[in-house]
Amino acid sequence: MAIAPNMTSVPSRAPAVVATGPVGSPLGTGRVRLTGGLLHDWQRRNRVATVPHVVREVRQAGNLDNFRRLQDPSVGDYRGRYPFLDTDVYKTLEGVAYELARDPADAEEAEALAVAREFYEESVALIERTQRADGYLGTFYQSPQSAKRPWQDLSWGHEMYNLGHLAQAAVAASRQLGDRRLLDVASRFADLVVERYGPDGEQAYCGHPEVEMALVELARETGDGRYLEQARLFVERRGAGTLEHTIFAADYFQDAVPLRELGSVTGHAVRMVYLAAGATDVALETGDDALVAHLEHLWDDMVARKSYLTGGIGSRHSDEAFGDRFELPAERAYAETCAAIGTVQWGWRLFLATGRADVLDHVERVLHNAYAVGLSEDGAAFFYDNPLQRRPDHEQRSGAEKDGEPLRRAWFGCPCCPPNVVRWMSELQDHLAVADDDSLTVALYASAAIDSPALGVDVTTDLPWDGRVTVRVRRAPDRPVTLALRIPAWADGATATVDGEPVAERPADGWLRLTRTWTPGRTVVLDLPMPVRAVTAHPHLDAARGTAAVLRGPLVYCVEQQDAAAPVDDLLLSPEDVARLAVDHDHPWRVLRGDLAVAPPTSDDPYPPLGATAPATHRAPVALVPYALWGNREVGAMRVFLRLS
Amino acid sequence: MAIAPNMTSVPSRAPAVVATGPVGSPLGTGRVRLTGGLLHDWQRRNRVATVPHVVREVRQAGNLDNFRRLQDPSVGDYRGRYPFLDTDVYKTLEGVAYELARDPADAEEAEALAVAREFYEESVALIERTQRADGYLGTFYQSPQSAKRPWQDLSWGHEMYNLGHLAQAAVAASRQLGDRRLLDVASRFADLVVERYGPDGEQAYCGHPEVEMALVELARETGDGRYLEQARLFVERRGAGTLEHTIFAADYFQDAVPLRELGSVTGHAVRMVYLAAGATDVALETGDDALVAHLEHLWDDMVARKSYLTGGIGSRHSDEAFGDRFELPAERAYAETCAAIGTVQWGWRLFLATGRADVLDHVERVLHNAYAVGLSEDGAAFFYDNPLQRRPDHEQRSGAEKDGEPLRRAWFGCPCCPPNVVRWMSELQDHLAVADDDSLTVALYASAAIDSPALGVDVTTDLPWDGRVTVRVRRAPDRPVTLALRIPAWADGATATVDGEPVAERPADGWLRLTRTWTPGRTVVLDLPMPVRAVTAHPHLDAARGTAAVLRGPLVYCVEQQDAAAPVDDLLLSPEDVARLAVDHDHPWRVLRGDLAVAPPTSDDPYPPLGATAPATHRAPVALVPYALWGNREVGAMRVFLRLS
Repeated sequence: MAIAPNMTSVPSRAPAVVATGPVGSPLGTGRVRLTGGLLHDWQRRNRVATVPHVVREVRQAGNLDNFRRLQDPSVGDYRGRYPFLDTDVYKTLEGVAYELARDPADAEEAEALAVAREFYEESVALIERTQRADGYLGTFYQSPQSAKRPWQDLSWGHEMYNLGHLAQAAVAASRQLGDRRLLDVASRFADLVVERYGPDGEQAYCGHPEVEMALVELARETGDGRYLEQARLFVERRGAGTLEHTIFAADYFQDAVPLRELGSVTGHAVRMVYLAAGATDVALETGDDALVAHLEHLWDDMVARKSYLTGGIGSRHSDEAFGDRFELPAERAYAETCAAIGTVQWGWRLFLATGRADVLDHVERVLHNAYAVGLSEDGAAFFYDNPLQRRPDHEQRSGAEKDGEPLRRAWFGCPCCPPNVVRWMSELQDHLAVADDDSLTVALYASAAIDSPALGVDVTTDLPWDGRVTVRVRRAPDRPVTLALRIPAWADGATATVDGEPVAERPADGWLRLTRTWTPGRTVVLDLPMPVRAVTAHPHLDAARGTAAVLRGPLVYCVEQQDAAAPVDDLLLSPEDVARLAVDHDHPWRVLRGDLAVAPPTSDDPYPPLGATAPATHRAPVALVPYALWGNREVGAMRVFLRLS
Repeated sequence: MAIAPNMTSVPSRAPAVVATGPVGSPLGTGRVRLTGGLLHDWQRRNRVATVPHVVREVRQAGNLDNFRRLQDPSVGDYRGRYPFLDTDVYKTLEGVAYELARDPADAEEAEALAVAREFYEESVALIERTQRADGYLGTFYQSPQSAKRPWQDLSWGHEMYNLGHLAQAAVAASRQLGDRRLLDVASRFADLVVERYGPDGEQAYCGHPEVEMALVELARETGDGRYLEQARLFVERRGAGTLEHTIFAADYFQDAVPLRELGSVTGHAVRMVYLAAGATDVALETGDDALVAHLEHLWDDMVARKSYLTGGIGSRHSDEAFGDRFELPAERAYAETCAAIGTVQWGWRLFLATGRADVLDHVERVLHNAYAVGLSEDGAAFFYDNPLQRRPDHEQRSGAEKDGEPLRRAWFGCPCCPPNVVRWMSELQDHLAVADDDSLTVALYASAAIDSPALGVDVTTDLPWDGRVTVRVRRAPDRPVTLALRIPAWADGATATVDGEPVAERPADGWLRLTRTWTPGRTVVLDLPMPVRAVTAHPHLDAARGTAAVLRGPLVYCVEQQDAAAPVDDLLLSPEDVARLAVDHDHPWRVLRGDLAVAPPTSDDPYPPLGATAPATHRAPVALVPYALWGNREVGAMRVFLRLS
């Protein structure tokens, strides 16, 4: 492990990226570059559309004014209702740091980056000026008008959550831009936290986990092992039941039992996966195999019993929380976009700690469905919650959904998701591969130039639209090196060639490991079959009983009303229908076309006598679209799970 | 109509009960008396257990202290978080007034009534002393420490909601006990409301409907037509979008569109049905047939598309609100007990306005399931929300469900349900029959002595346990009178005799109407078949697809884990199994016994390939209990809807 369990051995300045597990370490800044395909398109959209939009919204919402007013009272009152609004600035900065580190491809990108640069400089200066001499930073509690003082309300104050996002932005700025200004600010704030809540300090922790991941990254970037130890303390202390709130119970805060005793992911979903991600970081860095094993148990339970088909988590609107096992109603899937990001963060770390391919399969599922759906095709509107069904009479009316708004919204009163989408889009390339001196492991597929210590390769693929992946070696040593390629569970019958010759190796544990003395120009072609397929539901998943959903590769599909010549609630799917669905390769969304049986209700009786049936009366043409792309056109009914005939 | 649409013709003192629709009027105080059977048992339990319990809890929670402290500052701060806590006193008083009007049957009842009497006298005196000279009464806003003044926050202030429950208690005390003290208080408060919000006053209304029903009753009891007009104004004004709240949207308050334009019941469920009940009162009294027709449309839509099998409404935990049509997940049924009471109140009024038997069928369903389940068998613990499924890993953890509490709870921070249960238990007899000079209509069945203008009859029945109803005539005029008996939709093949001779009449529209010149001693015997039966779900009711539920008569049954030799989630039901279920007539709950196939999951895959099956492996003995009685023993998993084989 890179930062040793014994803190005394921590080097004063560690390398920039040090997380090392059984499959090696992530590659450092600039070592992976997206070169084309969907993820590249996403990143360009992020740069030219989402970043400028979010910067504008953050300014308009007053998040920067909340800093400014502490120097200039004429700016006015604290804006917004929440004590965590500084994090919108921090999350945006994290994404902006990544974007600024990459050259613009054209004038449009250059123009957008100028906006980002101005925001970056202005924000960093404001943040530096606002930090108190003792290191504290949080505009909500620093306000003279605040009814509460710092550290009075750890349950709801979000003060260390603020530190967490600040530190993550700071690490990004340091790594991507070599700008250590924010790192100095974050370190001073972290020092204050270590002083107050360190080994000999108050045995407390923050109501919203997040700082744990950030402190580990801060330790990696600064080489200061105290931050890792502080993260470990926060993980281990939690569960003492010290967090109190008039509305939320201990379970909401993951504070009813210690993490090591937790039987299943529980409570507020974002809090839960952020905590688990931070705990996985701690376990990886401290070599705590027992903790890794427990986190694997929690992950496996979540994937098998508390995840939607899209990878979305946290089914409950109340408390934005996990439900019971198999409590996964499609129309009420809260499945917050931030929870999808947290799942990807946790899954990535769990992959680093275990090397498990199936964990990446789920990360891929989340990325292309529960995460991707959160952003509009034009990159300037967001879903907060991500249901798998929209009923024909659904009205947007509560919480994030206000009357008369478009389906995705430009901003929210609690705007956690948009800047979270921004930062994650900007960091996609960090999650494609890991390596050590003898291997390169390709974890997620996208067209990219990858420079690992042993191998330089160019990956070319049209995934998720087409299943071919080409890996061309650009640089290789004169010794055997293992190129490990993930074979997703959805790719039954995958085949591979090296320079046109079928390989003898067989996939094991989800990996095709090719050990060769590679030479520049050698080319691996991996063919991942992507037939249209359908899945049904576990017998305990009541909400999806008697239905099936259509997938192709990692993509979940759905039917929007405008693409069906009958009410989506009346469509029937059969195995034969699935086999006949045709991929429209000319359509940018690769829609699936076919026709399905239609079975309208035959009675208004909500609970007809057992034996009542609604037979199919005719067939209707239907197109299915990727779930991630629904809600970009006319608003109407939508279903992922279709009734089985 | 009793109170004429033209207000100038309202008599100065109307008869005590005047609501008159197509089937006549309710019978007045003392005209119907429960003499045995389940509802009589409920009422005895209410008297000896629930009333003393609720009186004790109301005292302990500080609701009376909130009055007391306005005269005596040494009592301390306002207790509780809500501005509507006076209504716990009012609702309890309403029930207590009914209980005090009936003689105790034994020493235990006498002792309980002494507690009730002490509470009544103390409360009435406190209420009288607390009312301001201008008529205002509301301890939350009357407090000198209150940050807000009266009438500043109609959206959340609940001030007219407070008036509503006060007026209902006052009418009960006046009718049942002849005590007009509360009526004078309520009238003064209502006069203030009429002055402020009358025809020429502020065009406003209260965020929580309730006062509408109460003002109509106040008009009936006092003969003052201004109160009816005020109720009408509140119904008609609502929907202007004037109610504002940081969390709740207009829809929550039924304030997005006027009631007459509402397409479906919506928003906070209790608010919705209270509003609809008040509107039905107004429509009945003003002869507004168009409004009655619209309310029938809303009712029918609610029953067919937004009601659980138990009659519970308001599926959403967030906002305690109605969901979309068919959004009825069993495990997340919020189905608040108060919403069940509101449904019964609305249904009763809609029956008065239309004479529809099917409306009473639904009222009966709600009464014996969604309402009855809200109270423990011992009468001293309550459900706030009433799901139709409890998963094996369910933990009580949010909102009304706090960690470590028993399934039903003694009291709540928002204690609306317990005193609501009390008052409704005390008033059951008011909802058994209606009559005019030429007919007696028996609406709901219970053993009771009924004295209508034309007929005196004794009804004897063991419903809902057994389907025989005997109606023995005690008093009759020497002219033809119609005795109308409801034939529930569940009673397929019902038969009737008069003095042992089968009747020639056939049921029509759910009524068996027997017109005879009755003489004392003549006896009608109605046999309502009650086979065990099963229902399934409408094709659009996703959450119950591929399942069936068992009923007998009006009772919905469920399986609790302790009564099944296999996990309840693995039990399969078939039509043949239903036919073989045997009623245990020796069991006080008439449990159903049989054995069912068991099909455990064969895989951990939450979304297995289409075609995966989980076949039955064996059979297991099972007992089903009435849903209303679940949760009175060991806490465990429970299902109403069982998987179909």
